[in-house]
Formats: sequence, C-alpha cells, structure tokens
Amino acid sequence: MAQAVVRAEQYRGMGAAEFFYRNKEIAGFGNPTRAIYQTVRELVENSLDATEVHKIPPKIVVQVEAVDPDKNIYRVTVDDNGIGIPPDKAPYAFGRVLYSSKYVARQTRGMYGLGVKMAVLYGQMTVGKPTLVITSPRGSKFTYRFKVKVNVKTNEPEVPEKGEWPKSGDWHGTRVSIELVGDWRRARTKILEYIKRTAIIAPYADITIITPEGILVRYPRKTYEMPEPPKEAKPHPKGIDIEALRQIIDKSKAKTLKQLLITEFQSIGPKTASVLLKRAGLEPDLNPKTLTDDQLKALVDAFHSYEKFRPPSPEPLSPIGAELIKIGLKSVLKPEFVEAVTRRPSAYGGHPFIVEVGIAYGGEIPPADQPVLYRYANKIPLLYDEKSDVAWKVVGETIDWSNYKVSFPAPLVVLVHIASTKVPYKGVGKESVMEVPEIEREIRLAVQEVARKLKRYLTKKEKEEELQKKVITFMKYVPEVARSLSVLSIDPETKKKKYDERSLEEKLKEIIAKKLGIPKEELPEVVIEIE
Amino acid sequence: MAQAVVRAEQYRGMGAAEFFYRNKEIAGFGNPTRAIYQTVRELVENSLDATEVHKIPPKIVVQVEAVDPDKNIYRVTVDDNGIGIPPDKAPYAFGRVLYSSKYVARQTRGMYGLGVKMAVLYGQMTVGKPTLVITSPRGSKFTYRFKVKVNVKTNEPEVPEKGEWPKSGDWHGTRVSIELVGDWRRARTKILEYIKRTAIIAPYADITIITPEGILVRYPRKTYEMPEPPKEAKPHPKGIDIEALRQIIDKSKAKTLKQLLITEFQSIGPKTASVLLKRAGLEPDLNPKTLTDDQLKALVDAFHSYEKFRPPSPEPLSPIGAELIKIGLKSVLKPEFVEAVTRRPSAYGGHPFIVEVGIAYGGEIPPADQPVLYRYANKIPLLYDEKSDVAWKVVGETIDWSNYKVSFPAPLVVLVHIASTKVPYKGVGKESVMEVPEIEREIRLAVQEVARKLKRYLTKKEKEEELQKKVITFMKYVPEVARSLSVLSIDPETKKKKYDERSLEEKLKEIIAKKLGIPKEELPEVVIEIE
Repeated sequence: MAQAVVRAEQYRGMGAAEFFYRNKEIAGFGNPTRAIYQTVRELVENSLDATEVHKIPPKIVVQVEAVDPDKNIYRVTVDDNGIGIPPDKAPYAFGRVLYSSKYVARQTRGMYGLGVKMAVLYGQMTVGKPTLVITSPRGSKFTYRFKVKVNVKTNEPEVPEKGEWPKSGDWHGTRVSIELVGDWRRARTKILEYIKRTAIIAPYADITIITPEGILVRYPRKTYEMPEPPKEAKPHPKGIDIEALRQIIDKSKAKTLKQLLITEFQSIGPKTASVLLKRAGLEPDLNPKTLTDDQLKALVDAFHSYEKFRPPSPEPLSPIGAELIKIGLKSVLKPEFVEAVTRRPSAYGGHPFIVEVGIAYGGEIPPADQPVLYRYANKIPLLYDEKSDVAWKVVGETIDWSNYKVSFPAPLVVLVHIASTKVPYKGVGKESVMEVPEIEREIRLAVQEVARKLKRYLTKKEKEEELQKKVITFMKYVPEVARSLSVLSIDPETKKKKYDERSLEEKLKEIIAKKLGIPKEELPEVVIEIE
Repeated sequence: MAQAVVRAEQYRGMGAAEFFYRNKEIAGFGNPTRAIYQTVRELVENSLDATEVHKIPPKIVVQVEAVDPDKNIYRVTVDDNGIGIPPDKAPYAFGRVLYSSKYVARQTRGMYGLGVKMAVLYGQMTVGKPTLVITSPRGSKFTYRFKVKVNVKTNEPEVPEKGEWPKSGDWHGTRVSIELVGDWRRARTKILEYIKRTAIIAPYADITIITPEGILVRYPRKTYEMPEPPKEAKPHPKGIDIEALRQIIDKSKAKTLKQLLITEFQSIGPKTASVLLKRAGLEPDLNPKTLTDDQLKALVDAFHSYEKFRPPSPEPLSPIGAELIKIGLKSVLKPEFVEAVTRRPSAYGGHPFIVEVGIAYGGEIPPADQPVLYRYANKIPLLYDEKSDVAWKVVGETIDWSNYKVSFPAPLVVLVHIASTKVPYKGVGKESVMEVPEIEREIRLAVQEVARKLKRYLTKKEKEEELQKKVITFMKYVPEVARSLSVLSIDPETKKKKYDERSLEEKLKEIIAKKLGIPKEELPEVVIEIE
C-alpha cells in the first residue's frame, strides 16, 4: 500500500515579546525614521500620563543626542516631573511587553502596554545597550537607577545594573535614556511637529526639545489650568461580551446574580437588575460562578437588547476643554480667529467618548490648498496615515467648506480631538482612527458647529471690509467737497468764507460716521494719491 | 512636614490572548461585518496553506449558514483537503494565540499565528460556543474531532469535547465550524469578492461558497499546474539585528564563530566568513556563546556594511507565475487582453520578495473612472484600506495611464502580487502594505512592463480599426465599380461583356487585399445600405 510522504509541519508557540519584536513595524518601529520618531513619542506620552493624570503641571525635557552620527546612533532622553515608578515595578514597566498601569477603564495616552518596551527593544536590537531609567516616586525617600532590557524569548526584564540613593528635596519624576539606530535627519521635521502639536493640546505643560544640532525649542507653560483627571469607571453593560462577563464574574465577590449586576456594572440599580434577569430567564439568587455558556449568553443578550440604560459615564474621560484648546491654538499658531467646542459625551459599543474641535484661521497661518488637520486621540497628536483617519474623512472629504465662506487656498487649521477609554485605533502604532459611525457623526457635528462660528466671523469681516471700502471712497472726497463748500460759502459782500475747510471736513466726517454707524474716531485718514 | 497624597498606579501584565481579545479590531475583528469577513478569510487562507504548500490541488468548500438571523448568529464552516493537523497540535493551533506552524522563513498566507484564534475567540465572546474542528492528518489512520476555545486569561486551549475514529479511505483534510455574531448582509459583497479574487490568484484551486440564502457559487479548477512550494531558507546576514544574532547563537551547535557564520547564514562561505570576522575584529575560533554586547554589535555592523553578499535567496518564495495569473484573470474576468509578468527576486532589509503584475483589459470588464486594482500579498486578496497601500500609490497615483493609450473611463484591471517571507503589512489584520521603497520600485517597474504590452496591443488595435474602416470604405464601392467596369467591358460588336461582374469583384478584392496587406478571405462582406 502506498503511503503518502508526510512532511511534518513545525508547530510552536511564541511569546508576546518575540511576536512584537518580529513584527515591530506594527507598533510603529518599521524603519530607523519611524523608530526614532516613535521612541520620542512613547517617552513623551508616558511622561504626560505620569504628570497630568495626577494633576501635576508637566515639565518635560526631550534631548536627542548624536552618539555616532556616521552609524546613525542617537540617544533619546526624556525627563519629567511625574509621579515616578515604584522600584519593584520599574523593570517590568520597561522590560516586559504587555505590562502596564493603564489597563483600566480610564482615558490615558498609553493603552497597550507596548510602546516604551518597543523602544527599549529597538534600542537593544540595533545598538545592543540596555535602557537607562532613573526614577523617584512621589513620596519616596530614594532615587532609583536601572539599566533594563527585554528578554525576547521569556518576556522577562533583564536588569544588568541597578542602584539607589537617598534623595534630598522633594523631586519626583522619571528620566529615561535609550540609544538606538535612528534616522534623525528624516525624522526631524515630524518630531518637531509632534512636539509643537503636543504643546498646542497641552498648554499647561512646559515642553522643551534639544536637537542633536544643539537647537533648543521651548514651549513654555501658558496656563496652570488643567483638565480634570479621569476617574476609573465600572464597565457599561452595552460593552460587555460573553468573555468580558466571564472575567468579571471570575473576579467578583458577588454571591448572587442580582448583586453582581448591581455592584459590577454602571447604570444598573436593583430595579434594572430585576428586569434584566427576568428577560434573561435567570433567577436573581443564582451564584454567578455556576452560570452555563447558554446562561451567560442569555444575560449578555439581555444587556444588548435593553433600551433604557443611561449612556456610559463620561467620568473616566478627561477632555481638554474648549478654553484650553483656544489657548493652545492661539499661543502656537497666532491666528486672527480661533474657536473651539467640546461636545457632550457620547458612546460606541459601551465605550464613552467625547469629541472636541477647534478652528484657527488667518493671522500667521499660511494659506493652503486644503484644511490643515491636527488630529489628536487622548491628547496624542497623530501625524501619520492622515488620509485613512475618520477625522480626515469629515474635515477633508465630507464638509463643504465653501458653505462656511472658506475658499481655498485658505489659512485654515482644524483641530479634532477624540477622548475615549478605548480609542479605536487602526493599529497598535496609534496613527489613525477607524471610521466608527458614532465617532464620525460627533466629529461632523462638532466641526459644523465651530465652522458656523467661523462663517459668522468671516461674514462680519467681509461686511467690515465692504464698509471700509465705502468709508475710504467717501473719505477720498471729503477734502475736495469741503473745499468746494467752503468756496461756495463765501459771503458775496464780505468776501469771507462763512465756513472754513477744516470745520466743514469735520462736519462731513461726522455725517459719514453717523451714516455708516461707526464712531468718528475710527474713520481712516485718507491721503489722496495724485494720479 | 506635608506629605504629597500618593495615588498608587495599578500595574499588571497581560497575556497575548487577553491583549488581542481586548484589541480585536487590530486583527480585523472590529465589528460584526468585519468579523464575519475576517473569519471566512482566515479559514480559507489556512486551508490554502494546508494544501498548496504541500502541492495538493486545493478543494475548498465554504458554507455560511444562518443559525439565528434575528440575532445575527451565523455559522461559518470551511472544509479542505489539506494535510490535516496532528491531534496533539490541533487544540493549540485553534486555542492558543501566537501558536503556529508558520513561524519559519517561508512564504505562507499565515504569518502571525493569530487569525484563526481570533475567529475562535470572536465566536466564543459573541455566541459563547466553542469552535468545532474535524481533522485527519495525511497518512493518519484516524479522524479527530475537537471542540475548542481559547482561555483568554491563560492563553491555553480549552477542549470541552473530543473524539477520534478510524478512517476508511485515504481522506485527509480539515473542517472547521465557527458560530459567531456577524453582519452577513453587509459583509456579503466583500466575502463574495474575496472568494472571486482568491479564485483568480489560485486557478488550480476548486473553491465553492454556499451562502445563507442557499446560493452556491463555484470556481472550478482551471489547471492542475501549481506554483513550486516554498522552501525554508537560512537567514540572510543583511536582515540580522543584535537580538536575532543572539537567538541564532542560542540555538546553534556551532563551536566557533567561523563555523557559526558558515552554517547558520545564507551567502557566507569560509572566505566571506573570514573577511567578516576580520572586519568585526573577532577571532574565528571564539566560542559564539561568549560574545559580549559590543562584540555582537561589531559582528552585526560587519554584516550590514559588507557590500558583496548575494541577494537573499528566493527559495522560500512561491510566486504564482505569469502563466497562472493570465489563466486566472482570463477565466474569471473574460477580458479581451491579458498580460502578466513575474519580476526577478529582490529584497528589502534582508527579506526576499518578488512582485508579479497582471493586466486585464476590455472584454467583459466594465469601464471605470480609474484602474480597478486587485491587490494580493502572499496570494491573499486584500480588500480593505486600498488607498493606503503601496500598490495603489503606484497604480492609482504614480503611473500616468495616458502614456499607455488608456483613457478613462476604461475597462482596466491591474493585479499586483507581492510574495515575500515577510510582507510589510501595516497591521495584523493584513489589509495594506507599507510603502517600502524597494517594493514600490519593483511594482512600478512591473506595472510599466506590462502596461507597455497593453500599449502595443491598444496601438495595434487602433491601427486595425483604422484599417477596418478603410477596408469597409473600399468594399462599399466594389460592387458598383465592378458593375461599371463590367458595363465598360462590353464588346461593341458582340454586345457581350468581356468581364462579368462576379470575376471583376473578385479581382478588385484581390487588389484591395494586397494593397492593405491582409488575406483576401479576411475582407468583410459589405452590404450596402440603401439610403
């Protein structure tokens, strides 16, 4: 009997560290240009999370140094005044992929527990050196120093060096230093733009970057006013699937189903709990840990089909607020017009979100053929993959700007900020946001709202310009008319002018000002050109 | 002394299964439409990998059934005649995220060890049921049946049911059945398009899909000719970083550095090994396991700066070949013109790749305002995120089609296939390919090459049409002229025609045919319309 030649397939498992190491481009580390950009980003975002989430006005210094420019080796160092990292957690926070303090339902820049580890990994795979971390937690009496690497195979941190020393004063914060092969020259513009846009969205931060060329760019703090930090929230029933329910039951101490619903979820009180359980055909006294697959499914179905839940609580969100957006746009872009709006909280699939939109127009903004879009998600500026982002779809493709009196080329910057406990990024590199219909709608409404204000401004400006033209036309003739009237006013007897030119001019100006409805002092001086 | 209020951050680690469960949109499972599409995709791609990589002409049946259409519950079942999965591996292959037989340097559709597990997970989180797997490995005497789930917390497979029975006959293959909440109505068009495009790229496959409406669409096998399966290859030195080198050393049995270089890498013989080690300042007899970080770095630097390596071997690649592409395009699109090219192997960052391009024009292809692009990577049709793909950049934005006599609207389909051991996807959902300059260049050259052939065809067609017009013009007058000549040839004496009309017509046709350089038989019959 013939036997087929069996070629055995080699099966094996892979750890998370090895997976992301092998697929680093997915996390934004695809080439030396993206890698150095992404390294700066991840460190700055960690620093901002470590400060503003705890209501510390951030002070951040980014330094990029050329270690060996011929081999494209750079050192990226970021210093912050954040809450620091406890010494027992720090090696993991830098040396273990998928380890984080941000796996909670609360708006933070970080989300995946991946970014800074990818930077550490990228450094060790291109330069071979560990990352240097110096940190002093708020309230601690020590400062700690680590060198740390990711073990790609085991996903355990490796700490070749560590030390600690008592600290004087009450400094707290973290300083991280990574050497990597990067393409600074190509990344330069994007990195500086990233810092600028960060400064716009966080005018309460003091951010400095020092480039390898020795150039220092500083965005000083514009205000001490800061957004309210996010609070953790219980999960909303609409966002629950069978697996999530299973996990909640696993962790919960609730003895009965009814208790479970009331204690573990938003928007469920005793009455709603009873309705839900009845719909699911489940006894309120059932022990949650005994539920079968079908019973879990029935409960989730009840969650999804119930119409009367309050929308997800916005407590875990921390929008910037229209005032801060305006301060940011004004101070950095120096426009002639600025306006912003923070929409009311909304939700998609159980996740709360808030959209904020700002518009800056004119002034020092150079005209462009299309709106310049500043995209942000959880206060992170997004610079790559603009065209595949939901915000571009609205701002660049859906809105007809001519309806708002904007005709391109125009000096128009539109800022769109999406704040959510779960930003639906298209990839773990966090560069563009999916077209979730609920989010798209909110962006559209917000842009329209602000654009209407821009339109009013532009309409008013147009009218003023017309008025200005009229005034100038009138004013041109004032001296001439005054002279003529003055001549006509000569008394044939006395040969004396009844009215002199000067007073006639003033009289005429008064009439013009009254006619046009503007104060006389605002009339321009017109010097008639002799043709 | 005042003590700052310390708010403790909650740190924790996360397993790979939980990570991808929480971020499922990143793997293409963001909503019920994408989820059902992605489920079909992942299963079909696994089936194709299980057949053609082993030179088995694939026979695949996809069935989508409505289990409970009111609740959008569907069952997706895919049946193949592949090599099957060994019973000890099967639970992991379906129940553990990041577990695969495809983590080797060899072109396969699968790559991440993620797709089918995400489908299993999506099923269990939306419907709550395990996935049903029936498999019989090639050469095995048994058929195995499993129900399998992913434990989100531990990333271990859960097998609530299993069984085995002896098999009669020599059937081998796998049948997978997943129940999930999906939006079939919205996904329908994309899924059918996906199957169609798969049939185009794999004309040696027999693929059938049965829809919930009971409609059966079958793409029968067009040929038994199949591409040469890929072979595993050693890594190329250009693609090696410090971490990769460390891993290779860990696994290698080489006792000396020189031996390591010769046995573990492509393109390194004894002579090159000596040169590389000299450049790195390393002794050839050194035990590889003793290398310091700096020595590892020096060796990698030597790899990267050496100019004389042969390019990466194309052995691990399995392009389709121009002939099969033409067969695929012809049989499915029924165009009037088809052409294809397979470029020579190229490489980026140590990864070999081959670009193939096909063009189909006219016939049953409906005209469109721009080229219709069929994108493929490792034989996977890519249907989403077209505009952010490197192939679109070339076909839709760079190439000026008017240079090739194509003016839109035109019936033009361009197929671009990238085959690589490492396709630089933008995300693990595998929907678009990054703009890697080397790949972009190859695509451009390939498109230009095929487009030139299209141009020749269109030029020839234009000329033929002109000729045709001329012929018709001449032929219109043939009967008239023949009659006149015939009348003129009447002998005044005998009153008889010297030449009859019939023979004169034939004579005239001969003259016309000779003049235009076409065979007389090809002259059209012209029936003169009476105006």
